Amino acid sequence: MASRPRHRILVVNPNSNEAVTKGLAAALAPVQFADGPEIECRTLAEGPYGIETQEHVESVTLPLRRLVAGSNDIDAFVIACYSDPGLAVCREATARPVFGINEAGVLTALARGEQVGVIAIGQRSIRRHVRYMRQLGLMDRFAGERPLNMSVAEVASGEKTLDRMIEIGEELRDNDAADVIVMGCAGMARHRQPLEAALGIPVIDPTQAAVAMAIGAVQFAAT
Amino acid sequence: MASRPRHRILVVNPNSNEAVTKGLAAALAPVQFADGPEIECRTLAEGPYGIETQEHVESVTLPLRRLVAGSNDIDAFVIACYSDPGLAVCREATARPVFGINEAGVLTALARGEQVGVIAIGQRSIRRHVRYMRQLGLMDRFAGERPLNMSVAEVASGEKTLDRMIEIGEELRDNDAADVIVMGCAGMARHRQPLEAALGIPVIDPTQAAVAMAIGAVQFAAT
Amino acid sequence: MASRPRHRILVVNPNSNEAVTKGLAAALAPVQFADGPEIECRTLAEGPYGIETQEHVESVTLPLRRLVAGSNDIDAFVIACYSDPGLAVCREATARPVFGINEAGVLTALARGEQVGVIAIGQRSIRRHVRYMRQLGLMDRFAGERPLNMSVAEVASGEKTLDRMIEIGEELRDNDAADVIVMGCAGMARHRQPLEAALGIPVIDPTQAAVAMAIGAVQFAAT
Amino acid sequence: MASRPRHRILVVNPNSNEAVTKGLAAALAPVQFADGPEIECRTLAEGPYGIETQEHVESVTLPLRRLVAGSNDIDAFVIACYSDPGLAVCREATARPVFGINEAGVLTALARGEQVGVIAIGQRSIRRHVRYMRQLGLMDRFAGERPLNMSVAEVASGEKTLDRMIEIGEELRDNDAADVIVMGCAGMARHRQPLEAALGIPVIDPTQAAVAMAIGAVQFAAT
Amino acid sequence: MASRPRHRILVVNPNSNEAVTKGLAAALAPVQFADGPEIECRTLAEGPYGIETQEHVESVTLPLRRLVAGSNDIDAFVIACYSDPGLAVCREATARPVFGINEAGVLTALARGEQVGVIAIGQRSIRRHVRYMRQLGLMDRFAGERPLNMSVAEVASGEKTLDRMIEIGEELRDNDAADVIVMGCAGMARHRQPLEAALGIPVIDPTQAAVAMAIGAVQFAAT
Amino acid sequence: MASRPRHRILVVNPNSNEAVTKGLAAALAPVQFADGPEIECRTLAEGPYGIETQEHVESVTLPLRRLVAGSNDIDAFVIACYSDPGLAVCREATARPVFGINEAGVLTALARGEQVGVIAIGQRSIRRHVRYMRQLGLMDRFAGERPLNMSVAEVASGEKTLDRMIEIGEELRDNDAADVIVMGCAGMARHRQPLEAALGIPVIDPTQAAVAMAIGAVQFAAT
Repeated sequence: MASRPRHRILVVNPNSNEAVTKGLAAALAPVQFADGPEIECRTLAEGPYGIETQEHVESVTLPLRRLVAGSNDIDAFVIACYSDPGLAVCREATARPVFGINEAGVLTALARGEQVGVIAIGQRSIRRHVRYMRQLGLMDRFAGERPLNMSVAEVASGEKTLDRMIEIGEELRDNDAADVIVMGCAGMARHRQPLEAALGIPVIDPTQAAVAMAIGAVQFAAT
Repeated sequence: MASRPRHRILVVNPNSNEAVTKGLAAALAPVQFADGPEIECRTLAEGPYGIETQEHVESVTLPLRRLVAGSNDIDAFVIACYSDPGLAVCREATARPVFGINEAGVLTALARGEQVGVIAIGQRSIRRHVRYMRQLGLMDRFAGERPLNMSVAEVASGEKTLDRMIEIGEELRDNDAADVIVMGCAGMARHRQPLEAALGIPVIDPTQAAVAMAIGAVQFAAT
Repeated sequence: MASRPRHRILVVNPNSNEAVTKGLAAALAPVQFADGPEIECRTLAEGPYGIETQEHVESVTLPLRRLVAGSNDIDAFVIACYSDPGLAVCREATARPVFGINEAGVLTALARGEQVGVIAIGQRSIRRHVRYMRQLGLMDRFAGERPLNMSVAEVASGEKTLDRMIEIGEELRDNDAADVIVMGCAGMARHRQPLEAALGIPVIDPTQAAVAMAIGAVQFAAT
Repeated sequence: MASRPRHRILVVNPNSNEAVTKGLAAALAPVQFADGPEIECRTLAEGPYGIETQEHVESVTLPLRRLVAGSNDIDAFVIACYSDPGLAVCREATARPVFGINEAGVLTALARGEQVGVIAIGQRSIRRHVRYMRQLGLMDRFAGERPLNMSVAEVASGEKTLDRMIEIGEELRDNDAADVIVMGCAGMARHRQPLEAALGIPVIDPTQAAVAMAIGAVQFAAT
Repeated sequence: MASRPRHRILVVNPNSNEAVTKGLAAALAPVQFADGPEIECRTLAEGPYGIETQEHVESVTLPLRRLVAGSNDIDAFVIACYSDPGLAVCREATARPVFGINEAGVLTALARGEQVGVIAIGQRSIRRHVRYMRQLGLMDRFAGERPLNMSVAEVASGEKTLDRMIEIGEELRDNDAADVIVMGCAGMARHRQPLEAALGIPVIDPTQAAVAMAIGAVQFAAT
Repeated sequence: MASRPRHRILVVNPNSNEAVTKGLAAALAPVQFADGPEIECRTLAEGPYGIETQEHVESVTLPLRRLVAGSNDIDAFVIACYSDPGLAVCREATARPVFGINEAGVLTALARGEQVGVIAIGQRSIRRHVRYMRQLGLMDRFAGERPLNMSVAEVASGEKTLDRMIEIGEELRDNDAADVIVMGCAGMARHRQPLEAALGIPVIDPTQAAVAMAIGAVQFAAT
């Protein structure tokens, strides 16, 4: 392997919040192997500050496509927003693998439990996410989704975030029979381990899940 | 990460054919990172020479469980047989992640295409696999499964194997509308790349897919 | 009813082909009632000449949203493209009804037959349409979709179009067990009646179906 | 259009309660266009006073069939009872469109929201309605059905009906995640608008929905 | 058990063809145990000569209900027509078990194979049967249904019937992947054993299946 | 029938608790017809004392297979444990019918009600049972499963068992909308009748259901 140049995985944060991008980089450090693929986290310049509405989603689809189409030095892409914005159009633009973190997170969760519960930031994204679960054909494995009902800012900053995530995770586990949890946002990774410890069931960070799939995709490409 | 001892992933070949185990090791070399998890491929001593019947499947479930329960130095397990033998009982035996290659292979395929086609070695395993797809709740994404109708020995040895895989892959792609293929056997990895090149759609080796998920699971465990 | 101002329904052709827009107007003439809602067919200025790819779809979502958000004098909207571009984001932008012709066409077909067959213009849109059927949760009523494999220009112009539609419709009816057909394009309305006569099963023009729903939505709004 | 005789749509109330038939006529007045199809509401002579049991349903199937088979001057039929009695047998009797209001109501609702909630009059019809939703293949879009637990008389007469409908609608919206409501009875149309205003989500009167579809079916028949 | 009066199971042939009723009695002789339930096969006086259309189905629902409601000496009922006419209304009329042979036949088949194939007499009943499979929620286990395309008279009389059933059974087995067959008619029982022998997979006579369930229901009623 | 030797049905209790086997024999007495099949209840020598975990399940699969393969004098088998251990491998070992009581119990319940509720002994088996319902493709008919949360010993002995079963049955009926109950254990048969009387909806003992199917299978084998 040594003589071959390292593969490159681009993780795009489609919102323009650099703190989120930095959080992604920190969350992915454990798979930055010296002789493995380079994992670059990049902020989409054209992105809104947060992606909370369908309009936000639509606003980044073509910028993401342009980024993908123009990045010839990248072997695989991860779109790091739980709405999986632009996934279909990016896949149309390249034969290289493009992963959406919602899709990859839920699929990975299905290898860890029977029924997937999702923690959302806000109530209003849930209907969009459920429609997406139906599009994925995975409703028979879907336990439910419940919102933190916190602002993105609160989620990012606060100490109370973990407490609230545990509370919601317990509802998903105990009321909805979830036995694996997906964190429904790109910016919650640092809570993954303590949340898993508190709940006693696997907790999946969707960006980490997507990047693990991407590592496989690029490393095994020639074999 | 340097000071932490490397994580360990155990890939178990549940049949007693050492050639298959060696093939697994070769297929997984691209993710043997110097500072990543150690990936050990091991033959199950108690396994039959091949796993072709339900009786073969049942014969390895408890030996696999014992192996898992007794391997305290392992952080994640991959059961490298497309029948996913003993997956439920191994998961009952440990809180550490256990991956089955059928489950992981199909889930990974769903991140690469809309409808999954599976190449089986023989006709008689297809009904078992379809039942399993139903258990996984994934029938709405299942394009079909078609057999090579070759013996395991023929598959392992011959040059004709790839030709036959291409032929069957084309049927799955053109008649069943599959746009991603899973190779339904642990011992086909070396054909992955030429098969993908010939078909023009992604081809997933299920052991590679499971190991990629396992790498994510162990590396992100503490974050 | 006479004293009430007429309701207004805006049918948007999201591509910039004026001939298509004129065809829509002709196809909708039978429901232009003197004392019913005004039905206006309008070309989306920002649209591409045809909508054949996911990129084309994405390119019109925000222009459609702006049109909807800015049209305060309109009581209901119909997006007249079989890819239902921008449907979710337009619905987010207004509390007034917004209909997509794929959705409305298939739902209307389900009131006319057991299993819906769809005639597509080209092969490459089928996977997108099937994903959408899955998103709609309607796979158990979906007989299949088959392409004309003609260019949009050929479809629009030629006499051979009807012959080809009959041929494909027969395949859907006889091989896929469809007992109702949806024409999977906004520009095929003039073939609806002869196609239905030739096939002997109901044929749904999706724009007509959507407009019928829209008439109900606006007329019954106050009752 | 002027020289062509007007199309005719027959809306049959399968129970013998003339007040219900009059209510239907009032509810459909907004689509009685001068140059549109004539919409006639008629009471089925043989119908029971109300259709509350399966026996009531069965008692009207053949009378409805006879009515349909004998009405050569009618272009489309609407069976205005939420149990959709005789729908299959009436469709067997004629090539002209026959609409059932449950089917048409739910299908129309699916063009207005993601998950449909149904307000039933009594508990005992719910199991029948759920079985019917399963027959329609629409369970993945079904939020739930809840009963008013009022008699048909109470529903028809009282002022309390609307209050009770709002209460039940709120439960469907808030507990069952419905984002569109179908009124599960032919005689509730006058509550549609205030109920929709109170709930803030679309409310579908199923007879109105079926008649809108019927208008499309007859007007577009020759185009 | 000796002192208890024997339970009674009534098997109703809803058509007026006495030959069919006699065939039922012959087919059920193997479970006429001396100390078991009495199994009586009776012709519905009001039935048409054959039940081939939806109108035929509807014509017997209320007569069947009356029979059930008036037969106080019967412990369980079997409606011996593959259209399961009147099943819901008969169940409404009594708390005693009422079995439909389509429902019981398919459910029993699901205990003998993975995918059920059905042999129909004619093409036109298939759509009705498929709708019913959907109502039963069993589409994921349904391999397909294929018609003999013979008249009921031909089926009853001829030697060619078995040959044709074998031919169709082979198509279901080989093309549709059925591994268990249901004979989709009450009058085919005498072909069950040779058909099963020829196909090498289980063949279910639906009346026999329903009566076996009924024996369990009545015999275990007090325990 | 008289001259033919009686058919033989073997009901295997896969745990080594003889009291359970005796209970099975008592529960099946009502179908021990003098001229019907002999029904033998036998304890699996190799079985654990109870089957409560996946490990217990796996421990009996091959012993069950050996028993089936070696019992040439048996015409049909019933595996009397609600986990249906070894069902697939036993079916592989013989062409004679093998029934699992979970499968047969649920399928029989579907002929008695719309939505099946299951009473489990303990919480931890529920996830396994739900996975199995998904494998059976029956989720659309599954109301839910609730645990007694009693030990097997408590269930077997106590008077409180029935009270607790009624309580849980009421929850399944009233909260989960079940209209038929399956007792999710081989050792609850003596509570079937009083539980059914208390709940007012059918209650299915799964071993009784499986044996009724087995009687049909063996008696009709030659006809």
